[in-house]
Amino acid sequence: MDFDNTGDTELSELGEFGLIKHLTQHIEIYQDSTIKGVGDDAAVIDNGKMETVISTDMLVEGVHFDLTYVPLKHLGYKSVVVNLSDIYAMNAEPRQIVVSIAISNRFKLGALEELYAGMLLACKKYNVDLVGGDTTSSLTGLVISITAIGAAKKEDIVYRSGAKESNLLCVTGDLGGAYMGLQILEREKAVYVENPKLQPDLEGKDYILERQLKPEARKDIFELFKKLKLQPTSMIDVSDGLSSEILHLCTQSNVGVELYEEKIPIDPLTNDTAMEFNLDPTLCVLSGGEDYELLFTIDIGDYDKVKNLPDFTIIGHITNEAKGRLMVARAGSVHDLKAQGWNALLKK
Amino acid sequence: MDFDNTGDTELSELGEFGLIKHLTQHIEIYQDSTIKGVGDDAAVIDNGKMETVISTDMLVEGVHFDLTYVPLKHLGYKSVVVNLSDIYAMNAEPRQIVVSIAISNRFKLGALEELYAGMLLACKKYNVDLVGGDTTSSLTGLVISITAIGAAKKEDIVYRSGAKESNLLCVTGDLGGAYMGLQILEREKAVYVENPKLQPDLEGKDYILERQLKPEARKDIFELFKKLKLQPTSMIDVSDGLSSEILHLCTQSNVGVELYEEKIPIDPLTNDTAMEFNLDPTLCVLSGGEDYELLFTIDIGDYDKVKNLPDFTIIGHITNEAKGRLMVARAGSVHDLKAQGWNALLKK
Repeated sequence: MDFDNTGDTELSELGEFGLIKHLTQHIEIYQDSTIKGVGDDAAVIDNGKMETVISTDMLVEGVHFDLTYVPLKHLGYKSVVVNLSDIYAMNAEPRQIVVSIAISNRFKLGALEELYAGMLLACKKYNVDLVGGDTTSSLTGLVISITAIGAAKKEDIVYRSGAKESNLLCVTGDLGGAYMGLQILEREKAVYVENPKLQPDLEGKDYILERQLKPEARKDIFELFKKLKLQPTSMIDVSDGLSSEILHLCTQSNVGVELYEEKIPIDPLTNDTAMEFNLDPTLCVLSGGEDYELLFTIDIGDYDKVKNLPDFTIIGHITNEAKGRLMVARAGSVHDLKAQGWNALLKK
Repeated sequence: MDFDNTGDTELSELGEFGLIKHLTQHIEIYQDSTIKGVGDDAAVIDNGKMETVISTDMLVEGVHFDLTYVPLKHLGYKSVVVNLSDIYAMNAEPRQIVVSIAISNRFKLGALEELYAGMLLACKKYNVDLVGGDTTSSLTGLVISITAIGAAKKEDIVYRSGAKESNLLCVTGDLGGAYMGLQILEREKAVYVENPKLQPDLEGKDYILERQLKPEARKDIFELFKKLKLQPTSMIDVSDGLSSEILHLCTQSNVGVELYEEKIPIDPLTNDTAMEFNLDPTLCVLSGGEDYELLFTIDIGDYDKVKNLPDFTIIGHITNEAKGRLMVARAGSVHDLKAQGWNALLKK
């Protein structure tokens, strides 16, 4: 991205319309269905015969991100990705986003440009059009609200409510990394606050830092489902902890579950870092969140389609609702799964 | 709306999921096209053969509203209405909204309920479905971000860019009232801060206070256009000042304009209140904003369709771009129209 040398411009010099014009000049259109993007009262999207899928997420400074250690470009990228992840979790293709930003005057133009550059990078990677938004001032921190719009054939959409008894419970990738990356960043921030001269110790932690700072949505899995002609019976993305996501599927599908602790995919670095922090790696996965992997159920007849795929792990199976929502621990003991999702409202 | 007697519940007692469940329990579905509302990763909307129109707006405490004098129910209502207004300004029918709210723990549950009650009241009045959202915490003030989705036949959508030379420039209703209502509220707040025992003096100001606190979007005009078989050539809603909205139409249509000051519709109460504040009523209209009327251009051949409609006023006509964007004042003098829209980023 080739930005002008205007990074230090005060936002008030540009004015609202000047700012919008400046920020939107690099927007490109990738989707045929985008009839009209930014610049009118509303964007216009052609839908043909598809169903529209729409999701929204809000990120608040000091609650969802800490600008002490999150670069703005990464923040912009991530804020788009977490919304697209919700659309993929419906087995739909994200096509457009609208973005609202509230920003205080402690930010200069360069900061907003970085944020936008990250958002546009995500748009390019995921082939999504930024078609509208609102930019306004805030008295304090930065707030980003993104709405993503996707499309899918009616028969392809996967809800949380379709899990059936004897279905296999699967997850993509590995879990807990984003949470451990956050622990590293928080630790190094605390060190820095104590002694600003000390360099942060991030060595060897690249993978989990990237999981936290630059997560990806599983577009590849959405495409793989199409290729395999595999239709999950239910699906959700792992934005909160695994435990709370499994409970969402069970509650909406009126089923029980048996989750096997030993099957949960955890990267060795995640595991070792948890140990370093005296944390139980499984607990980090169950409650940690922000991995943006896909959690889904499939018919047992589809087992052959997934059994040799390196990026899919079968972690349990769906049972009758009366059997409850259980985790079978490594030692063989059985525990009730509890909702321990990242709870924004308890964080303060 | 029949809320439980839970208004004083601390938000942290409910938890994130409990809060969402509590707030969404009263949501009703009015639109056949709403396949799936809240409760999954994304909402699902059936589009048939229509085009989708989408708009988003963010309202920030201390910037767009002051809870000292804005009741939360009114705020919820207004936050929906301003988004629907953008959809009507495309000559499209709003059908769904998604709502994101960031709220600090100084608010109790009762406050959020009031906000939601206002939003759902607007949904009911405008026949719009609330189909999703995000509720999160904020370290300070309240932030509301709403995305509205509408539908229209391709040939019915009206852009800002279609104004042509010799078109008539029209506006609905009257202008400047919302701005004068705000002046009254700000004055009474200042009095209250000085002496909390004094009662606010709002007598006789009902109309302009309602224009500010409980604006309506012009659904009736959208319906009237259909009935009259009248297709505006360009359209925008008056959310900023009239001057900035006219300039948007001119810039995007590459045309000039002649606006006649004497034709601008101003309610007598707006006029008198402006005088009371030693303000020029025309300047209040040109720069004030928040009236949510529709500003549009029509072919001169459609004059007969609008000439006797009490709620439409012809305030000027479109000229060649080279003639400039002009206002002919009452005295006959001619002035350049300047963008003096409400500038969120200069407000601080």
